[in-house]
Amino acid sequence: MGNALIEYQNASPEVRAVFDDIMATRKTDWINNFWKALARDPATLQRTWESIKQIMAPGALDPLAKEMIYVAVSVTNQCGYCIASHTAAARSKGMNENMHAELLAVVGMANETNRLAAGYQVEIDERFKSQ
Amino acid sequence: MGNALIEYQNASPEVRAVFDDIMATRKTDWINNFWKALARDPATLQRTWESIKQIMAPGALDPLAKEMIYVAVSVTNQCGYCIASHTAAARSKGMNENMHAELLAVVGMANETNRLAAGYQVEIDERFKSQ
Amino acid sequence: MGNALIEYQNASPEVRAVFDDIMATRKTDWINNFWKALARDPATLQRTWESIKQIMAPGALDPLAKEMIYVAVSVTNQCGYCIASHTAAARSKGMNENMHAELLAVVGMANETNRLAAGYQVEIDERFKSQ
Amino acid sequence: MGNALIEYQNASPEVRAVFDDIMATRKTDWINNFWKALARDPATLQRTWESIKQIMAPGALDPLAKEMIYVAVSVTNQCGYCIASHTAAARSKGMNENMHAELLAVVGMANETNRLAAGYQVEIDERFKSQ
Amino acid sequence: MGNALIEYQNASPEVRAVFDDIMATRKTDWINNFWKALARDPATLQRTWESIKQIMAPGALDPLAKEMIYVAVSVTNQCGYCIASHTAAARSKGMNENMHAELLAVVGMANETNRLAAGYQVEIDERFKSQ
Amino acid sequence: MGNALIEYQNASPEVRAVFDDIMATRKTDWINNFWKALARDPATLQRTWESIKQIMAPGALDPLAKEMIYVAVSVTNQCGYCIASHTAAARSKGMNENMHAELLAVVGMANETNRLAAGYQVEIDERFKSQ
Repeated sequence: MGNALIEYQNASPEVRAVFDDIMATRKTDWINNFWKALARDPATLQRTWESIKQIMAPGALDPLAKEMIYVAVSVTNQCGYCIASHTAAARSKGMNENMHAELLAVVGMANETNRLAAGYQVEIDERFKSQ
Repeated sequence: MGNALIEYQNASPEVRAVFDDIMATRKTDWINNFWKALARDPATLQRTWESIKQIMAPGALDPLAKEMIYVAVSVTNQCGYCIASHTAAARSKGMNENMHAELLAVVGMANETNRLAAGYQVEIDERFKSQ
Repeated sequence: MGNALIEYQNASPEVRAVFDDIMATRKTDWINNFWKALARDPATLQRTWESIKQIMAPGALDPLAKEMIYVAVSVTNQCGYCIASHTAAARSKGMNENMHAELLAVVGMANETNRLAAGYQVEIDERFKSQ
Repeated sequence: MGNALIEYQNASPEVRAVFDDIMATRKTDWINNFWKALARDPATLQRTWESIKQIMAPGALDPLAKEMIYVAVSVTNQCGYCIASHTAAARSKGMNENMHAELLAVVGMANETNRLAAGYQVEIDERFKSQ
Repeated sequence: MGNALIEYQNASPEVRAVFDDIMATRKTDWINNFWKALARDPATLQRTWESIKQIMAPGALDPLAKEMIYVAVSVTNQCGYCIASHTAAARSKGMNENMHAELLAVVGMANETNRLAAGYQVEIDERFKSQ
Repeated sequence: MGNALIEYQNASPEVRAVFDDIMATRKTDWINNFWKALARDPATLQRTWESIKQIMAPGALDPLAKEMIYVAVSVTNQCGYCIASHTAAARSKGMNENMHAELLAVVGMANETNRLAAGYQVEIDERFKSQ
């Protein structure tokens, strides 16, 4: 019960409609476990998918850049599922080994300097405030 | 003492050398508080600057993309100093309001779905493992 | 050694006393792994159990509300063990599927807006300070 | 620019419509800084408000319980703005001093045991998996 | 109300007893804000102080080592109050500038490699499991 | 591909040089998975190793103290790999069961009071600022 997944064949019409839209938008015939788990709560499934669809669409940033930002957050939060799924998504959108390596190097460094700034209790420069 | 800053005029030759390289690399005549705080520990100052310089240089990812990833991590970690300084750095490298807005939208969403994945105890799909 | 568990039959009298109190308080004949691990350090076992017993007892908030708050924290921290154990505990205290779904929806949303507030560097309203 | 706020009188019609809905839903004539900051990105403003409105509405959990869960997450994440705003919101929905004290006690304890479970590398009990 | 502090002269006898024990244990005539805030909830004040007193006492680790570990956690969590108070405490127990610098260097590095390990999805070596 | 490990026999000369230095420095003939994963990005492998080697060397703090600080951070961040590897490293450097228990007790407590300080919105005492 705790981590049950709703498969397409057992899904309600409203859940199937979201699953169909996910597959159509992503040009795939496959639904990953995250959505099958969310399907236990159709309201959250629909709201989350609509939000993701809006946010991850091409805009001022391209979909690959957004996917790598998603990986950066997931790695910082130590979310195993999200690291696996969004790293795969980033690869499918064009992230090669070098880009992946540089992404992780920046994420690691940022996590380090975030703590150096906090530990040394560095005050924000006036210049950064007036921006 | 706790949050003392080392100004250029009071810095040792080895610290000045790093400050000079920071200003030359960034084409600026200004050092922000983070480096002045790290200067209390010259070994960490030098190591951190050398690492940052290597990591943030143009490569498979461009400097603006890297700077936005830095913001994504800093926002996720709630590091006030780092959010202020790297948001300013990203702007100076070309991040406009629309890009900033999309960046934060992705960061917010990723932080949300990271918790939905954890809360629903979603298992990693086989497909993501074999990648 | 690293993740050894102390079983009741191998436990010292002081550890058994805590185990007995856990089972009596929870009206169960079962001890979960968390306590068996803590039993490696009897002082921490006793202090942690006494604290939990005091904090999770009925008070201004009922035990189910407290258990759901426990889940909210554990999900935010990505603590796999704690998500599993406290989700189970919340269910045993009456959390149904709808309540679970709403709990996770709030946790996800809060994690998102925590980052939007940080990313936009929103200053605290005077009204909130004077409260 | 970095932390600019959009006031009602300077807002576009679409932003005003969201502001109006926030005030009507909350039965107040006041908009807090979070929404004024999000108004810099009308799409995120609208999506976030619609999500919050849906998630925080009465359901299987009452609005006060949800607001306290919001505080629990915000405290865990060290989000100063969110702690201030959601603590105020919880008070306005009926959280008294005793409830607040118990809420924070649970949040503190959960953050402690989350680390004890991780540090002792406790494996998830079979019983919790089969739930 | 939200961040009210209970001063000694306004405190109840039970709160004064804890304050007295804090000052006696620490050989000081001063109570810092953390305890004055907790005094709003005497049960939490007492439990937290008793726990801290037990945990931070000399044992297999000396008090300075424990205080530096406290700083390491507080920096990782970006807790401004805790960084300030525990850095001061560590200094008063003998942490000099070099020790402080090395402490923060380790904390920064650990935060970095924590994310490299997660981002590269590194599996735990068998050797580490059998320990 | 996602979590591929580079074994010594398949490594390039520059990667082998780092592996050799790791084994020589640690007086071991074994490389753990973390380094084999980083070897996918030789620049990050080398930079990370050089940094770790510098930071973890004996200095104002001894290597065991540093290793325990590493564990404290890794536990706070819920990094499973890092908890396993650095707990093993700390044991090999002399951390016994009592020291481990006290380390985890402090880490747990610090994570708790970090949230109590945040939740009660405690302001930093003037005394801590002037330090």
